[in-house]
Amino acid sequence: MTEPFDAVSVIRTKRDRGRIPDAEIDWVIDAYTRGVVADEQMSALAMAILLNGMQPAELSRWTDAMIASGERLDLSGVHRPTTDKHSTGGVGDKITLALAPLVAACGAAVPQLSGRGLGHTGGTLDKLESIPGWRAELSNTDFINQLNSVGAVVCAAGDGLAPADKKLYALRDVTGTVEAIPLIASSIMSKKIAEGASALVLDVKVGTGAFMKNLADARTLAETMVALGTAAGSHTVALLTDMNTPLGRTAGNALEVAESVEVLAGGGPPDVIELTVSLAIEMLAGVGITDIDPAAALADGRAMDVWRAMIAAQGGDPDAALPVATDKQVLSAPSTGTLTRLDAYAVGVAAWRLGAGRARKEDPVSAGAGVVMLAKPGDTVTAGQPLLELHTDDTGRFERALQALDGAFDIGPADGYSAQPLLLGRVTA
Amino acid sequence: MTEPFDAVSVIRTKRDRGRIPDAEIDWVIDAYTRGVVADEQMSALAMAILLNGMQPAELSRWTDAMIASGERLDLSGVHRPTTDKHSTGGVGDKITLALAPLVAACGAAVPQLSGRGLGHTGGTLDKLESIPGWRAELSNTDFINQLNSVGAVVCAAGDGLAPADKKLYALRDVTGTVEAIPLIASSIMSKKIAEGASALVLDVKVGTGAFMKNLADARTLAETMVALGTAAGSHTVALLTDMNTPLGRTAGNALEVAESVEVLAGGGPPDVIELTVSLAIEMLAGVGITDIDPAAALADGRAMDVWRAMIAAQGGDPDAALPVATDKQVLSAPSTGTLTRLDAYAVGVAAWRLGAGRARKEDPVSAGAGVVMLAKPGDTVTAGQPLLELHTDDTGRFERALQALDGAFDIGPADGYSAQPLLLGRVTA
Repeated sequence: MTEPFDAVSVIRTKRDRGRIPDAEIDWVIDAYTRGVVADEQMSALAMAILLNGMQPAELSRWTDAMIASGERLDLSGVHRPTTDKHSTGGVGDKITLALAPLVAACGAAVPQLSGRGLGHTGGTLDKLESIPGWRAELSNTDFINQLNSVGAVVCAAGDGLAPADKKLYALRDVTGTVEAIPLIASSIMSKKIAEGASALVLDVKVGTGAFMKNLADARTLAETMVALGTAAGSHTVALLTDMNTPLGRTAGNALEVAESVEVLAGGGPPDVIELTVSLAIEMLAGVGITDIDPAAALADGRAMDVWRAMIAAQGGDPDAALPVATDKQVLSAPSTGTLTRLDAYAVGVAAWRLGAGRARKEDPVSAGAGVVMLAKPGDTVTAGQPLLELHTDDTGRFERALQALDGAFDIGPADGYSAQPLLLGRVTA
Repeated sequence: MTEPFDAVSVIRTKRDRGRIPDAEIDWVIDAYTRGVVADEQMSALAMAILLNGMQPAELSRWTDAMIASGERLDLSGVHRPTTDKHSTGGVGDKITLALAPLVAACGAAVPQLSGRGLGHTGGTLDKLESIPGWRAELSNTDFINQLNSVGAVVCAAGDGLAPADKKLYALRDVTGTVEAIPLIASSIMSKKIAEGASALVLDVKVGTGAFMKNLADARTLAETMVALGTAAGSHTVALLTDMNTPLGRTAGNALEVAESVEVLAGGGPPDVIELTVSLAIEMLAGVGITDIDPAAALADGRAMDVWRAMIAAQGGDPDAALPVATDKQVLSAPSTGTLTRLDAYAVGVAAWRLGAGRARKEDPVSAGAGVVMLAKPGDTVTAGQPLLELHTDDTGRFERALQALDGAFDIGPADGYSAQPLLLGRVTA
């Protein structure tokens, strides 16, 4: 087959700050998926995109081409309006676990294709897999059936969605081109658009534990993604939320499931409840459901009923005891005062080093490992009081986890603390 | 073996406009040569260098690392001072052929490792290989012996010099990263410095037939290369010379050898003589020889004597008839007047299409093919008079060669022409 374009001229266009013509965007993504455009060519193009950017229409076409590299989910057999959520990833971010059943309890269907964790942020599938019997893989038929019967599915994305993104993501990871906002936005949105939900809510994290360290970058990413979702015909909204402090009081797989069950039982940490309800309101509003109060559905057990059905439908036993780590160690407060800071990144790295996360895709994770935060910023602590509880199946891991926590928190006078808002902004089309 | 650095962090440094630390430069070039740094990583780094540049000391270290990837020639056994020349490539640029024996005739040794042509510019080895019996490959011992006995060697560079550059050059060619001045400069200079001559003269071409299209870019490249050569302890000077018009009256392998022999016999086109003598003066001055007049050595046959010895030493017969193309076609002047322009790039492409050049490294070249320029800018021509003579072994090639020459020249009133200087500038440390 003769190729209509060549990779070098596409690269040169972007290198020289030009706009890649639509037909060449379509070709370069398709040819890369076919292996005709080589990895070394795509990485040079990715670096040129990172440094020279992309125009909005150009990026929209790029995203469409990524979607066209694979299949789209057909949700036409789903009888409820479909609404989805994506988080850019944070520490202790177990929000999906309670959110998906909550939104389903309010009348929408939530088709949530999730991933596994890498590095210091956990993956939703890793968390759910700590529930005995639960399985992440579903056939297309079971997926649609469960959306109709239960209203919520959290499962593994198949290889069929945006295969170009899968290949490009792996390449960016080894070539220093992960941090390109157009490429981050198109990577996320190509998969989310291919999943076909009518509405989409993006939780864009900002802070030490997030990919975006400052509000300006996070807002740019949010605006870019909202524009892409809107251009693709999906009702898309983004919330900018704090990730300088971990969410809730746990970071770890089974630990976060247990905390989510608390939230579904009407309890749980206030920050987790606040973010869950805020995102539920947006997800429901996106499909026109504005007459149901998610806070009530969470408090009165309706969301818990859907959770139990959702876990059971995928083979899990919602009543089974969750795995517990074999070893525990406590980190105590060195002084008395107010906890003024607890760093999300440090807690994430500690949980990862205790066994909750993985360094490489093929590594296993420990279900029980992680960190329990016995105090959160704003709490008064007394010298010697347990502050953090470290859980692991391998005592050799404590030392490196404790190293990660060195300097991870501050204790000071009460007037040295002012509560920071969790919700930092909202971006709409 | 555990690697002390990782490619992603090196790429990130340059991506974020930083200066790559010396130890990381040494590592990344060495690891790339060993295959530990992958092509897709090096291409991302090359694009970041192209777009963000390199600091002078950083580039000098990069060049040193490329040299350290291979061997250095040991010229300590050469009894004369050694001086070398490099041209960035042009159309009809046969200067090396007469220059090397001329400089040797004036008392220096010229160890000239050359390459083959690609695209519209010819290669010195391709030209010399049109001489029956002449061979480009020499052992190290024969190389040194010939430098002592004859004073000049033009031969193929072995694979041992700067292997990192060889690998990187092939990568840049397919990733749109050829046009990075730091990478061009370090590619040329790593090989030239590894060749070990005491002095080096760079002929940096400017114009349509050259890699650098404008004087500013050419000057930047020249300054960058002179700085690298000087930092490496070689006496380095660059001349900036015109390449809007082809050099001399021929472009093609055997055609250019014949023209060079004319120059060595005391005749030949004035522009070829001017550039040959100018470069000889610089090459000789670089090793302190200032009391010999190269113009005289060219005119009185001393250079011809060295030429004959040089060709014979490498198996060639200086008296043998040169190959002649099987077919000829003439392009005539469409009007009467002064030839005001003859485009170097168009003539180069025509010669290439006639068979003198190659599109891929592995292609053969025709010894006889090429273009003879019967008129040069400034000449008065009469309508119907032959202007260009096209030589090929394959009549099917005439059409595409003529297409390349469409619009390649202008004929106008005599006052529409003003002679342009050949020497456009000189760059020293």
